Amino acid sequence: MKIRLAQLNYVVGDVDYNVKKIIEVIFDAKQHSVDLVVFSELCICGYSPLDLLEYKSFILKCKEGLDKIVSESEGIAVIVGLPTLNTNYRGKNLYNSAVFINDGQVQKIINKTLLPTYDVFDEYRYFESNDVFDIIEFKGEKIALTICEDLWDEQMTYGIFDREMLYKTAPMDKLIKLNPDFIINIAGSPFSYNQAQNRRDILIKNVIKYSLPIVYVNQVGANTELIFDGGSCVIGRGGYLAAKCKYFKEEILDFDLEKENNEFHDSIIHDKYCLIYNALIVGIKDFFAKQGFKKAVLGLSGGIDSAVTMALAVKALGSENVVALLMPSIYSSEHSIIDSVEMAEKCGVKYEIINIEQIRLGFEETFSSIFKGTQKDITEENIQARIRGIILMAYSNKFGHIVLNTSNKSEFAVGYSTMYGDMNGALSVLGDVYKTDVYKLAEYINEKYGNLIPKNIIIKAPSAELRPDQKDSDSLPEYDILDKILFSYIELRQCPELIAKSGLEIKTINEVVRMVNKSEFKRFQAPPILRISSKAFGFGRRIPIVAKF
Amino acid sequence: MKIRLAQLNYVVGDVDYNVKKIIEVIFDAKQHSVDLVVFSELCICGYSPLDLLEYKSFILKCKEGLDKIVSESEGIAVIVGLPTLNTNYRGKNLYNSAVFINDGQVQKIINKTLLPTYDVFDEYRYFESNDVFDIIEFKGEKIALTICEDLWDEQMTYGIFDREMLYKTAPMDKLIKLNPDFIINIAGSPFSYNQAQNRRDILIKNVIKYSLPIVYVNQVGANTELIFDGGSCVIGRGGYLAAKCKYFKEEILDFDLEKENNEFHDSIIHDKYCLIYNALIVGIKDFFAKQGFKKAVLGLSGGIDSAVTMALAVKALGSENVVALLMPSIYSSEHSIIDSVEMAEKCGVKYEIINIEQIRLGFEETFSSIFKGTQKDITEENIQARIRGIILMAYSNKFGHIVLNTSNKSEFAVGYSTMYGDMNGALSVLGDVYKTDVYKLAEYINEKYGNLIPKNIIIKAPSAELRPDQKDSDSLPEYDILDKILFSYIELRQCPELIAKSGLEIKTINEVVRMVNKSEFKRFQAPPILRISSKAFGFGRRIPIVAKF
Repeated sequence: MKIRLAQLNYVVGDVDYNVKKIIEVIFDAKQHSVDLVVFSELCICGYSPLDLLEYKSFILKCKEGLDKIVSESEGIAVIVGLPTLNTNYRGKNLYNSAVFINDGQVQKIINKTLLPTYDVFDEYRYFESNDVFDIIEFKGEKIALTICEDLWDEQMTYGIFDREMLYKTAPMDKLIKLNPDFIINIAGSPFSYNQAQNRRDILIKNVIKYSLPIVYVNQVGANTELIFDGGSCVIGRGGYLAAKCKYFKEEILDFDLEKENNEFHDSIIHDKYCLIYNALIVGIKDFFAKQGFKKAVLGLSGGIDSAVTMALAVKALGSENVVALLMPSIYSSEHSIIDSVEMAEKCGVKYEIINIEQIRLGFEETFSSIFKGTQKDITEENIQARIRGIILMAYSNKFGHIVLNTSNKSEFAVGYSTMYGDMNGALSVLGDVYKTDVYKLAEYINEKYGNLIPKNIIIKAPSAELRPDQKDSDSLPEYDILDKILFSYIELRQCPELIAKSGLEIKTINEVVRMVNKSEFKRFQAPPILRISSKAFGFGRRIPIVAKF
Repeated sequence: MKIRLAQLNYVVGDVDYNVKKIIEVIFDAKQHSVDLVVFSELCICGYSPLDLLEYKSFILKCKEGLDKIVSESEGIAVIVGLPTLNTNYRGKNLYNSAVFINDGQVQKIINKTLLPTYDVFDEYRYFESNDVFDIIEFKGEKIALTICEDLWDEQMTYGIFDREMLYKTAPMDKLIKLNPDFIINIAGSPFSYNQAQNRRDILIKNVIKYSLPIVYVNQVGANTELIFDGGSCVIGRGGYLAAKCKYFKEEILDFDLEKENNEFHDSIIHDKYCLIYNALIVGIKDFFAKQGFKKAVLGLSGGIDSAVTMALAVKALGSENVVALLMPSIYSSEHSIIDSVEMAEKCGVKYEIINIEQIRLGFEETFSSIFKGTQKDITEENIQARIRGIILMAYSNKFGHIVLNTSNKSEFAVGYSTMYGDMNGALSVLGDVYKTDVYKLAEYINEKYGNLIPKNIIIKAPSAELRPDQKDSDSLPEYDILDKILFSYIELRQCPELIAKSGLEIKTINEVVRMVNKSEFKRFQAPPILRISSKAFGFGRRIPIVAKF
């Protein structure tokens, strides 16, 4: 049986576009004598449509899309994913379904059983869980068709309080009793830097446990914060990688099941910073492409974060589509401008130098009577950051460039950033990358692209340059210590006492944890953040603002 | 049996505070010969702790709180709610539990079956669903102890695609077989202006269906966006209101079950604007009190939204704790200042007039070369809104006042607001109130408080005053039409074609829907919005930014 793995990039909600894309691949598959084309989870509407699923008109639109695909599937079999109506009187409105189409007819609909409802996933918000298990018969073979998490009844855990067995049932334990010949899994499984390996491990685990080959099809591309890396593959009966699609790229892969034992692929998954780099590039690219945007603008401060953001923007959008604004104040060091200019010129990026001094003085004079008798404090620092924020937004308004936020995860974590100032932006590129990882990413980029980021930007001590001789280390622990604490608290969800067992000072830990908790209100208003870790700020981490803990 | 309904206001995450409060009520109950004290759902940690539930240390802290309560419950029975560990190997980590304590011992733990996972609710994110049904025996009576949604297997629906029967099981159908004498329901049920009535209806429906009285205990107070109105009550066997607590206020109510037929209370639930007014007052009050804030600052523009916001702030925080900033530009009408001054003086609120012209000119000159040859457009309008945003934040930074956002729901809906400008604020007071309802609320306030809001502010045509002679109606349909469309699209989740059946023009509808969809990116960065409707922007409405539909 010749199976085609269709690893595609869909637009959420754009059913017409997605269906057209799917039909083109089906048409091409027919020319190549493919027996069965497999598309990914919810491919008709894109993953995840979120509350669009609460619109009946949206569900009907998806159904129309399915009908179109069915009518184009004569002489071939196709698996697509979409939300379908739960016709039972009780339970949620919808199922997350995989439809098996054979020769222009719907042969069977399989519904998802295990509905991920944790981190960035909200599937039980919309979908009823399946409890009927059935097998697909096709060309003399029996197929166990499963949807994403249905193979993940045993979870990979990150936080110390995460569960391995998150669900009461294991769909494959039911399906195996129906004697399938192989497993197909269609997924909408987003990227994190440890997910590619985890996914591979889960698939191999299932292959070995049930002694059945798996055909796995995931989507690629990015939808706002979520980045999909693909990693579609075939795992042979012995648990080896029989075929694989590229990461982060659309690919059509035809695979002959009978030949499964004749091929062998290496199973190396790229290193962390290579993965993060590629993910962020896709994240930026699709944020712009899927909204019809072309050009980006960002503030280039002379620091590492804006430098790495610009390098990524240049690689994702092309240097001709990126503009850098250098916005010095009286507190900016000379080298900040020199380094920024050097970087912009190296990247071939248009830049403008806009001195904020006149505006800053305007604020100072406007406030002179109201602030009379008060000391200079964070107010004046924030005003500078906010003037820069306005300038970026004004440039964006006037010329249509989209503002990229340049904050990193460490800053967002401790609130070392100004709301409506340097927190501005339509998209945060590095908001899920800790400061120490931003440096590693800079090294990766410099190795790959011949020192795009000037050395001076990498070696200088981090500073916000909002008052004379300011250094980040005046207010924060050194970043290697800070990031260790943050990772333990945020990703691993350890309490201070447990973190202290690693040898870090409890006083420092408590202070960092306090800063994290105190700045929920800032993160609430942060831009969407490209997610590259197992616990990013934003949708996947929901901490109350008004709370004590 | 003498039962005490304890309708209290808890602080999310502040276990020590909540437990102290609970123990005080138990101690007092003992003095009043109460047999059983009933507290609300998750009272030990407050509702809802969200992802704090992912910290093991937090769960252990709740358990310690329970232990303390148990040890203080000699000679009395107590029902409290908290998250407890799921000791089974499979399923989510936690249960949402009600603990029945009797004479210093835990007699029984009842877990929640129906886990609301829609709108603002995410309970299946944390909790496993109960499937074991048991009854409490106490003083010769059998009690069916249920947790909130366990009585809501049949839902009140709002959206046209909402489900009445959202769950596969009905816990009371199981419990009724165990022959209970009455039902206790402990809840964490947030306010919306139609919820008080719905809740009452659901309780009465259950009483009649199972022919059992219900003791219902809900919490009060606000936690960030969510406002809890209480409405704790006893519904007698005939479906009449036998006892009730006040709305929006802490109250301890002792009720003798044997006497249930001797009393009768009227069942009137206040009118919509009275409810909204009270809800918003609690929302503001608790946002400040629970974070230790006292003072608020807001921009007073001369328009209806900032006027109503100020009136509410004054009533919630006291006039001595509110500061109004009047920030005229060259486009501000004279009457805007006159009306604002009149309002501030009427409210007894301190105000400052800060002309933004010098700063605006600073931006104009700073941009003169970069913007050379371009036309004035929305850029210059946004700069004014953003200067005002900076001024408010600077005032906040310098003097510690919290910025109140003054945008209304209609503006947030169509994106008729400036990010990092008038969208600024720590809390949006009117962000869930449509413009037409803001007027109604103004009338309510003026009736109640002797025309606090000057008539001229109410009758003038709405304008952003960002360019000469600007009116909202230049860019938007009249608000009565706009709000009808918005309500149909957002609350009812109707598609344009369906909305058009009400007689509104399809062209206008499509344009409004397009504006709503296009401004998801703005709302993503909006402040937390006090929720008063069944579908507020924010946590309860999750629409993807990068999407076409």
